[in-house]
Amino acid sequence: MDLSERIENGMQLALRYSTANGCPPLLARGMRHAVFPGGARIRPRLCLAVAAACGDRDQQAATAAATAIELLHCASLVHDDMPCFDNAATRRGKSSVHAEFGEEVALLVGDGLIVAAFETVARETLHAPRLTAPLIATIAKAVGSPYGLVAGQAWESEPEINIDQYHRAKTASLFAGAVSTGALASGGNPQDWLVLADALGSAYQVADDLYDAIGKTGSMGKPAGQDTRNGKPNIVLSIGIEGALGQLRLLVDKAADSVPDCAGQDAFRAMIRNEATRLMPKQLAASAA
Amino acid sequence: MDLSERIENGMQLALRYSTANGCPPLLARGMRHAVFPGGARIRPRLCLAVAAACGDRDQQAATAAATAIELLHCASLVHDDMPCFDNAATRRGKSSVHAEFGEEVALLVGDGLIVAAFETVARETLHAPRLTAPLIATIAKAVGSPYGLVAGQAWESEPEINIDQYHRAKTASLFAGAVSTGALASGGNPQDWLVLADALGSAYQVADDLYDAIGKTGSMGKPAGQDTRNGKPNIVLSIGIEGALGQLRLLVDKAADSVPDCAGQDAFRAMIRNEATRLMPKQLAASAA
Repeated sequence: MDLSERIENGMQLALRYSTANGCPPLLARGMRHAVFPGGARIRPRLCLAVAAACGDRDQQAATAAATAIELLHCASLVHDDMPCFDNAATRRGKSSVHAEFGEEVALLVGDGLIVAAFETVARETLHAPRLTAPLIATIAKAVGSPYGLVAGQAWESEPEINIDQYHRAKTASLFAGAVSTGALASGGNPQDWLVLADALGSAYQVADDLYDAIGKTGSMGKPAGQDTRNGKPNIVLSIGIEGALGQLRLLVDKAADSVPDCAGQDAFRAMIRNEATRLMPKQLAASAA
Repeated sequence: MDLSERIENGMQLALRYSTANGCPPLLARGMRHAVFPGGARIRPRLCLAVAAACGDRDQQAATAAATAIELLHCASLVHDDMPCFDNAATRRGKSSVHAEFGEEVALLVGDGLIVAAFETVARETLHAPRLTAPLIATIAKAVGSPYGLVAGQAWESEPEINIDQYHRAKTASLFAGAVSTGALASGGNPQDWLVLADALGSAYQVADDLYDAIGKTGSMGKPAGQDTRNGKPNIVLSIGIEGALGQLRLLVDKAADSVPDCAGQDAFRAMIRNEATRLMPKQLAASAA
């Protein structure tokens, strides 16, 4: 089974549990709307790729971690799209959850997906109890407060934003979570992979800012121009398109160079360059590669 | 250390982690506002009381479960109070989180508390890996979808509510989670305690409906009359105050009678009657006792 298939199977299984018979129908539809069809599934792919590079010692645990990370990413998109934040009517080319089902359902869809993420890891690691707590603690750190996704989003409500802290929490933290849990699930050392996670998270942030600035909906599915409209920090506004592209090149190089010694080192490096190019605005990809 | 002290220490520890240095200041203040000072802490007390009745074999794990359950209860109050649901300006005699810090922060406070709950259990059960997954799966079932708190709240958005399913998910599920995790943490069998949890959950729901109907802010801290104003199901509207009081008496008896064989059986029964009376509207307590 290839990585994409494992991820989609993991997501389907998680949603089968959380929208099982007896679930309020709108909540069930909203949760599925938030998760299928998916975007690029960047973070869970990275998680599984790292797990494979570390020897794929426990595929079930790695798939559970990857699934949890993607569920949490989807939850954050649902909540970020709500009227009190980005007020985005669309996501991944269709209505956002609150636009389709109302704010109440959207709020609960996000909450339900957060819970489903942790439930997935617990359910799928019963056979490997020594993995459960480290995986859940790592994922919680990546998405919670004070340094994860929730904190990243919360920086937007502060009168003064530290842009580095903001990006680290809003984007890099979940990449770090994906990489760390991939390593943990295979008995690898998460520390060996953190430079890579950090560089890659920053690279995707720059790519996302570029999409926003040049007016295309990016790989993260956010409507273009939204940062500017919402007065949000965007690196292109501070160092320009050329500057941002240069930054992106440096970050992808840094990520590729930091792949630790492992069986599939060369393949992993190639994958990083490939994914990084694939997720960039097409008209810029050539110059950044 | 008595139960209340263990709970407050557990909550303080969880909040120290999730609002540590580097946390966005408004998020940190909002999270503390949502959690301190607490209400009656009914669910975590019940969790710790069951753990004690089962022999208190792992106090650290029981305290972690109790803390997680209370964090999730607090998270649900923050989200339920938001404008798209109850639009409640006050909670536990002070401003609700969204009234004090705005909707954005309130949404994130709820999300952050959900994550902190699971993080707490993972962090505090590293010494007992066989407890982590069962505790987290049990808690997730109690608060998530399709049968937990999130689903209970989601029933309010459906065109037709099954009132039994609604109350079971909205109230009884978290009581079941509290009781089950208390038993699990001490090596007891959660099944032995589920009749008690179910009866007690229903009793508190009836007590809460009574508070709402007679115009007092109840033990759950919800402003009086809110159900009527929001067109929500309330048992008093269907069977009257006397009918509801009779129902409450039956449920408390059922709960007390269902305490399984254990060292502290008599003390546990007395505690249930005592807590049930304590949490009822004062002018009704005498007739319901």
